[in-house]
Amino acid sequence: MRAAPSPEEIRRQNLAVLLRHVHRGGAVSRTTLAERMGVNRSTILALTADLVAAGLVREELPGQTGRAGRPSLVVRPQSQRFHVLALDVGADRLAAARVGLGGVVLDRVETARSGDTFDPAEVIAMLAAMAAEVSDDAAHCLGVGVAFCGMVRQSDGVVRFGPNIGWVDVPFGAELAARLGGELRVSVGNNANLGALAECERGVALGLRDLIYLHGDVGIGGGIVVGGHLLGGEGGYGGEIGHMIVNPNGRACACGSRGCLEAEAGELALIAAAGRADLSGRAAVAAIVQAAAYGDVTARDALHQVGDWLGRGVANLVNIFNPSMVVFGGVLRQVYLAAAAQVRSRVALEGLQAVRERVRLRTSALAGDATLIGAAELAFAEVLTDPLQTLARVGDRSAPSIAGPRGKGCG
Amino acid sequence: MRAAPSPEEIRRQNLAVLLRHVHRGGAVSRTTLAERMGVNRSTILALTADLVAAGLVREELPGQTGRAGRPSLVVRPQSQRFHVLALDVGADRLAAARVGLGGVVLDRVETARSGDTFDPAEVIAMLAAMAAEVSDDAAHCLGVGVAFCGMVRQSDGVVRFGPNIGWVDVPFGAELAARLGGELRVSVGNNANLGALAECERGVALGLRDLIYLHGDVGIGGGIVVGGHLLGGEGGYGGEIGHMIVNPNGRACACGSRGCLEAEAGELALIAAAGRADLSGRAAVAAIVQAAAYGDVTARDALHQVGDWLGRGVANLVNIFNPSMVVFGGVLRQVYLAAAAQVRSRVALEGLQAVRERVRLRTSALAGDATLIGAAELAFAEVLTDPLQTLARVGDRSAPSIAGPRGKGCG
Repeated sequence: MRAAPSPEEIRRQNLAVLLRHVHRGGAVSRTTLAERMGVNRSTILALTADLVAAGLVREELPGQTGRAGRPSLVVRPQSQRFHVLALDVGADRLAAARVGLGGVVLDRVETARSGDTFDPAEVIAMLAAMAAEVSDDAAHCLGVGVAFCGMVRQSDGVVRFGPNIGWVDVPFGAELAARLGGELRVSVGNNANLGALAECERGVALGLRDLIYLHGDVGIGGGIVVGGHLLGGEGGYGGEIGHMIVNPNGRACACGSRGCLEAEAGELALIAAAGRADLSGRAAVAAIVQAAAYGDVTARDALHQVGDWLGRGVANLVNIFNPSMVVFGGVLRQVYLAAAAQVRSRVALEGLQAVRERVRLRTSALAGDATLIGAAELAFAEVLTDPLQTLARVGDRSAPSIAGPRGKGCG
Repeated sequence: MRAAPSPEEIRRQNLAVLLRHVHRGGAVSRTTLAERMGVNRSTILALTADLVAAGLVREELPGQTGRAGRPSLVVRPQSQRFHVLALDVGADRLAAARVGLGGVVLDRVETARSGDTFDPAEVIAMLAAMAAEVSDDAAHCLGVGVAFCGMVRQSDGVVRFGPNIGWVDVPFGAELAARLGGELRVSVGNNANLGALAECERGVALGLRDLIYLHGDVGIGGGIVVGGHLLGGEGGYGGEIGHMIVNPNGRACACGSRGCLEAEAGELALIAAAGRADLSGRAAVAAIVQAAAYGDVTARDALHQVGDWLGRGVANLVNIFNPSMVVFGGVLRQVYLAAAAQVRSRVALEGLQAVRERVRLRTSALAGDATLIGAAELAFAEVLTDPLQTLARVGDRSAPSIAGPRGKGCG
């Protein structure tokens, strides 16, 4: 039998719940918070005061409500004070952002990359430089979240396999943390998993419980939400839909097989089909899509061919998962917009009626930021679980004491 | 805010929890039950007395324990008194069983079938006859569970699509219930989903949280457990892995596509490859497996070919789901045993290392009964949720009153 939680535990839990409401839902009135959390208004008042004092939320008068009487104050995330660092390692780009509470991107840099392999030390040096560019305020940094284009052991940030970047069993999380100074907590996750979470929390799939997010760069990653939970599998490596073989006699894949979905519908397949070996990465995809829009037949045919394979993969996934939505992110966003007819036609032909009749195909609402926003959520997880303890750890002087039943504000 | 449960609600919940422990775990001592349920021994005594009186469990002295002192009585499911009716509609067989609490198969009949289509009325008549053969005691029947080889809307038992039996939107559950007399509750589920649950609860996958169960008859169905829950998807139709296309230029499938996993690795593919059009259904698979064992080269090559496609499908699924186990059931049990090298070789070639290194490939422990046992669990669900209310509904005279805080035993 578990002992009942102490008043201090209950307060900590309530602080976390309130902060999550505000972080995910944005501005919300005290009255609504009291209703949603099932506590009385005086409790909300006390909790909000603690979080205001800690610098995590702020209160303000709402806009015109049209109602008589004194309006309930609105609680908002305080996005400017504390932040997390979000990093994205794609095979074709690196990106870094400073992200405030509420998922606000405060600053952002991106570098295109190409080539078969990346040296881990070189990538880590570049990430550290980009991190310094977006954030020079380590005292207010709550942590670092990294989206990586491959299979990651989340417990320690080891990259088990990044086929399109040439990494096998690289202790990436630990080396990056050391390079960043050793004081910041670094969490690493699969980029497509993080993109899926971001789309569910802030994007086109808001609140959906059965979702497939496909993230394209050189490879194709999958973030799959089943019954409201991310599909992890036994070891946390679930969702590798890019290595579902759709064409047994197809193109060679970086994983060693032939005809994987990413070999047939990823960037390299599109570039080869369009005969644009002069270009690489996202710039190549953009150029091919633009050429097709201007009437270039080769570019258009290349997009249709890639769209057809993409549609075959999506039809398989729709039959396997019966999702309510499939979201195309990364460069697949542009590919899908240019070849939606091919994708939809394959799903109509090969999807079973009971599953295809209700699935919606959509592009990412967060576009190029889905994986970054997801990486930020990874870094926000700690403060959203125990706000004051996290601030104490981060060591910010404005954090209230966590010893007493109520923190003393000094904000 | 929810009101605290009343003593009567708590008692009902505890009765259900105790019955589930005994139904799933078999004989267990009162002491262990008290520990597992976190209640004291006098509560266990009272709960057990109620369930004994209701005819759902029995108590007996345990075998030799080797310990001094008075042994704790052992509580067992009472399998002989109440039962459920489990039915299985495969494309190549019909089966019916009377199943007692604890998952004990008390009686069982099976009929092989072949041919492209089944008339629903004919199938229902055959099922009713088989049901009468295994159980003539409707007064002690708690309900009917049916495993069906296709896509089922579980809310009302409508078969949306049964490609290998030729059914589209057949109100199967309602018609079967009417035929059985209208008094018995009939629940219908997908056969592979039910097989997966059965293997998790009583079979080779006991307690596993990430599992793929492949059920072969004419088609190949999938029951997929993700994080301890069956993958349902938005509409409950998830798991149609038989219609994952593994060979774009492959054999025609009953669903209308080409090269689906079930078209390449199902019964018909094996029969065609072995040139045994003289046979059909399970008998054909058994004959081909036997011929291969006796050295028939054509039969052996056919099994290897089918095993190779099966392995390709499994490799895709392993990459997508990172399961801890893949279980082969139905006729795939025999196919896997005869072509394990081909299946394993494909998984080794095409599975990504981090996911293939820990997955176990196994055959169903419940063999031909997995789907029946799963169907029985569907029918047991009600009594395992509210035992006394269910008995009151079933109208058995030995059920204690549900009005008072304690039933009056009359067993």
